[in-house]
Amino acid sequence: MRTIRVIGIGAGNPEHMTVQAINALNRSDVLLIPTKGDEKAFLADARRDICDRFLTNPACRILDYAVPVRRADGSYEDGVNDWHRAIAAIYERTLLNAVGEDETLGLLVWGDPMLYDSTLRIIDHVRTAGRVAFDMEVIPGITSVQALCASHGIALNRIGLPVEITTGRRLAEGWPDSSRDALVMLDGVQAFRTVTDPEAEIWWGAYLGTPHEILLSGRLAEMAETISETRRTAREKHGWIMDTYLIRRPATEAEEGPA
Amino acid sequence: MRTIRVIGIGAGNPEHMTVQAINALNRSDVLLIPTKGDEKAFLADARRDICDRFLTNPACRILDYAVPVRRADGSYEDGVNDWHRAIAAIYERTLLNAVGEDETLGLLVWGDPMLYDSTLRIIDHVRTAGRVAFDMEVIPGITSVQALCASHGIALNRIGLPVEITTGRRLAEGWPDSSRDALVMLDGVQAFRTVTDPEAEIWWGAYLGTPHEILLSGRLAEMAETISETRRTAREKHGWIMDTYLIRRPATEAEEGPA
Repeated sequence: MRTIRVIGIGAGNPEHMTVQAINALNRSDVLLIPTKGDEKAFLADARRDICDRFLTNPACRILDYAVPVRRADGSYEDGVNDWHRAIAAIYERTLLNAVGEDETLGLLVWGDPMLYDSTLRIIDHVRTAGRVAFDMEVIPGITSVQALCASHGIALNRIGLPVEITTGRRLAEGWPDSSRDALVMLDGVQAFRTVTDPEAEIWWGAYLGTPHEILLSGRLAEMAETISETRRTAREKHGWIMDTYLIRRPATEAEEGPA
Repeated sequence: MRTIRVIGIGAGNPEHMTVQAINALNRSDVLLIPTKGDEKAFLADARRDICDRFLTNPACRILDYAVPVRRADGSYEDGVNDWHRAIAAIYERTLLNAVGEDETLGLLVWGDPMLYDSTLRIIDHVRTAGRVAFDMEVIPGITSVQALCASHGIALNRIGLPVEITTGRRLAEGWPDSSRDALVMLDGVQAFRTVTDPEAEIWWGAYLGTPHEILLSGRLAEMAETISETRRTAREKHGWIMDTYLIRRPATEAEEGPA
């Protein structure tokens, strides 16, 4: 049986690689690496660094592929689904044509495959199509959420309190009802500007885990403008930006209590 | 200036150690390790394995300490605060008596220090007391949340949807209002039994990342009894249990949509 091994490689710092991920890399017969497409040049370099530094098995074959272009016409949802299917077709062809029947195909994923990543869903398309049988293994990796909290030296949750992990688009629709702590990813709309609680605090980070890392924190009302301006300047300088943040609002008395 | 370095060591599998954590371990002058107290013997062994396997700096001094006993009388909250202060006093004494002025004290934390762990809060007590100055560094680690998702081969979130990370006690008070996906930690009360949605699905795991790992998943209504029984049997066998789970309820039509 063929195996697809989905390997989390961390949030940008090559030293986020776990021993498990390094071993998984080296025990793969084929690694499929995107070389062109929507990945930022910086991330592509960091991925190459990871292979240069940690891949020591000379028998491992590296194949590259151009990431399909995502269609901009039609609905967003159709565009994403078509795009996933196009990548699934590449995985399937690779399995059938380049991976032996007892061999393993390794896929490298930024962060952790469990969190706001499409790889597991794309593999579902390959499974559903049913033209090639395979087992799957997943290797966890450090996420940008963890890199954010580590760099700020903060906990994600308060004692015994919940935290919601959400997207910028969701936050822009309104604050989550059941949590006073929101960790926001994929925010292209600067949704933090929609939070009006004057007591809210923010811990923000961009390019987390990389040498370009930027950190800002403080009272949201006082920091929102600085963060917007920093974001704009950094995006102009690097040509792209990836950021994430935690917003914490004071817990009500009813919410506090023992863990 | 002294430094306290809080090092996430992963969820039970020594191979969860990142390159960053291994380096952090070896660059610490002193490692402070709990040897007695409420840690399970299995975890203590796993921690020793990590030091045996990854600590290669012969100059690093390992100090152990007995974890203070948590008082059971009085309120739960007071008990936890007193307990944190007792550990803070140990950290403080260690810094003052065993760590040189330019040296680093390393603390090893299961999972990631950001998630349902007290170490950062205990260090806050030391900082607030003000009797010793220090810098702090945090090194992220793989959490049981990630080990759960990896072992089940699932994503934590659905496309563009939020997920709430919460505790068993909170879930027992009611389903979170703003999310249809709840990742539950620290559940001593089997709160999954309070979820009555017949469509809910569960992905459950115990002893994640260890050789004793147990995984169960399926329709919650059909699995709840099996999970309770498996939990009971495993706890009898091992003398302790640590488990976590994801419950997913069908998203309403309004919630679905593009990411």
